[in-house]
Amino acid sequence: MTPAASLAEKLLAGERSAVPRLISWAENADERFPAALARIFGRVGGAWRTGVTGPPGVGKSTLVNELARLFRERERTVGILAVDPSSPFTGGALLGDRIRMEERTLDAGVFIRSMASRGSHGGLALAAVDACDVMDAFGFDEVVVETVGVGQAEYDVVSAADTVLVVLCPGAGDSIQAMKAGLLEVADVLVVNKSDVSGADRLVTDLEEAVHIRTAGRTEWTTPVVACSAGTGKGVEGVVEAIETHRGFLAGDRKERLRAEKRILQVRRKVSERLSEAVWGSLGYLRTVETLLRNGATPYDVAARVMTTISAKLVDENPPSTDPGAGRP
Amino acid sequence: MTPAASLAEKLLAGERSAVPRLISWAENADERFPAALARIFGRVGGAWRTGVTGPPGVGKSTLVNELARLFRERERTVGILAVDPSSPFTGGALLGDRIRMEERTLDAGVFIRSMASRGSHGGLALAAVDACDVMDAFGFDEVVVETVGVGQAEYDVVSAADTVLVVLCPGAGDSIQAMKAGLLEVADVLVVNKSDVSGADRLVTDLEEAVHIRTAGRTEWTTPVVACSAGTGKGVEGVVEAIETHRGFLAGDRKERLRAEKRILQVRRKVSERLSEAVWGSLGYLRTVETLLRNGATPYDVAARVMTTISAKLVDENPPSTDPGAGRP
Repeated sequence: MTPAASLAEKLLAGERSAVPRLISWAENADERFPAALARIFGRVGGAWRTGVTGPPGVGKSTLVNELARLFRERERTVGILAVDPSSPFTGGALLGDRIRMEERTLDAGVFIRSMASRGSHGGLALAAVDACDVMDAFGFDEVVVETVGVGQAEYDVVSAADTVLVVLCPGAGDSIQAMKAGLLEVADVLVVNKSDVSGADRLVTDLEEAVHIRTAGRTEWTTPVVACSAGTGKGVEGVVEAIETHRGFLAGDRKERLRAEKRILQVRRKVSERLSEAVWGSLGYLRTVETLLRNGATPYDVAARVMTTISAKLVDENPPSTDPGAGRP
Repeated sequence: MTPAASLAEKLLAGERSAVPRLISWAENADERFPAALARIFGRVGGAWRTGVTGPPGVGKSTLVNELARLFRERERTVGILAVDPSSPFTGGALLGDRIRMEERTLDAGVFIRSMASRGSHGGLALAAVDACDVMDAFGFDEVVVETVGVGQAEYDVVSAADTVLVVLCPGAGDSIQAMKAGLLEVADVLVVNKSDVSGADRLVTDLEEAVHIRTAGRTEWTTPVVACSAGTGKGVEGVVEAIETHRGFLAGDRKERLRAEKRILQVRRKVSERLSEAVWGSLGYLRTVETLLRNGATPYDVAARVMTTISAKLVDENPPSTDPGAGRP
């Protein structure tokens, strides 16, 4: 048996040690990962994926910890992935935040993993989806993906989830900043954490008004605003209920359609990543670009020259066949 | 004369109204822009470009306003571009922040422009570089690009600048968050704004220590930490001096090498953007992807199938010729 097949079999047999190993393969873009994924892909789909994002300092880790506790009380197993896409330069997730989660790690029904590499942000978002697939195939009932910070990169990471929670709190991540960042539009559930801090009620009201204005008539789902205090546990039950309600809303066709759309997006990102490697992996192009620029060509001219040799062939091309079996291992 | 040539001539003749019109072309990816840029590109390079980024609420707009005032005192003209990449979903820059800048707009030596569109973040970063090229070619001595928020997208926008200022302040964007976001690594100058607020001295010390640890022996440039209060104007002179010092450090070969590297990055981004359009603009690929996924293929398999038909041709391909004239209008 190949190493990929062997590790995949272990995962399917319920060997927990296979989970972090397969996630490491995904994180490192190990060439064995696709074959392993193909073997476990039929088991993917049973987990409910919740993405958690929001500005730094709003208490996302504490909330995730509490969510895990409540999921466990309901006898559901939980896989948690904490992603730090805002460190492309250091490449290191600050694991200090995770220490608070340790009480959960003594419980075999909870799996926690941090991730902060895979070069570019695009790669990190792809690796995060792969890691969720691994946790899903292993059989965790709930998969929670958490990101540090807020922005396009963070949204890319959580956007593959079924339910996206955006966490805010009075002061740190105030409502105006959230609106600026377009966070209201991407949230399935808005959570106001630190509900015992002054200003929380006002933030809830502001957000409810903003949601009302922005989503009026545009969607069948009205984003709820849920207040809680993850530090004391107060109100976190309400967050779980909001996730459940959204899950109920997405049941059946809606869920399948949403997941299919997210898979297509994943493929598009993968192809973009690979096209970029294919073009720039060849030193010839890079040298040509340097020469053209040195001779005063504009970046538009240079890009057009590179594209001329590539894209004429792309647009003439026939799409690949639709036989799904042919490309599989 | 073509519209592109005509507008380019107006810009070269010093007609100020050509600046916003050309920037709009860049922002809207107008097909006339590349030809216009080719006509003015020989005049690009005289301006010093300063990028300003940092977390929301640290006072970036106020600082930029003060920098513009000091540049004007030194009889240098200033073009300012305020970019809001964190709104991919709303697509709207909050112009409220800019109202404070209005006192500057009565001065013909200052030009201010906001930008928040061009679909994707990648497109926005490219449009921002184009806008800087336009302001540069018009003859502004100083070009300042400011972004709202902090993250990869924001960094992409300011990264084309010669000098990158990262602005922090006590409380709002504290040093730990800045380190998490990898901000220290990308800063040429660290600015601690709101120096009159308690905690500012401590933040300066923390940042100096962090810079010392991170950059020791790795670079010839040691990122200075400059405290100021943009609201009162106190210490902003020191920020201008830090920019000047960095400018002096980059003089000559270093500047040329740095700018050449940034142009190459710009070309790579342009090519990526166009490749993506070329592949996914054809509905055939999208339908194939949907079919394969529906039949249970993994995203890796599907991406591999799409790539098989594309990349074999890419890698076999000869790089384009190095004759710079052939592709120009």
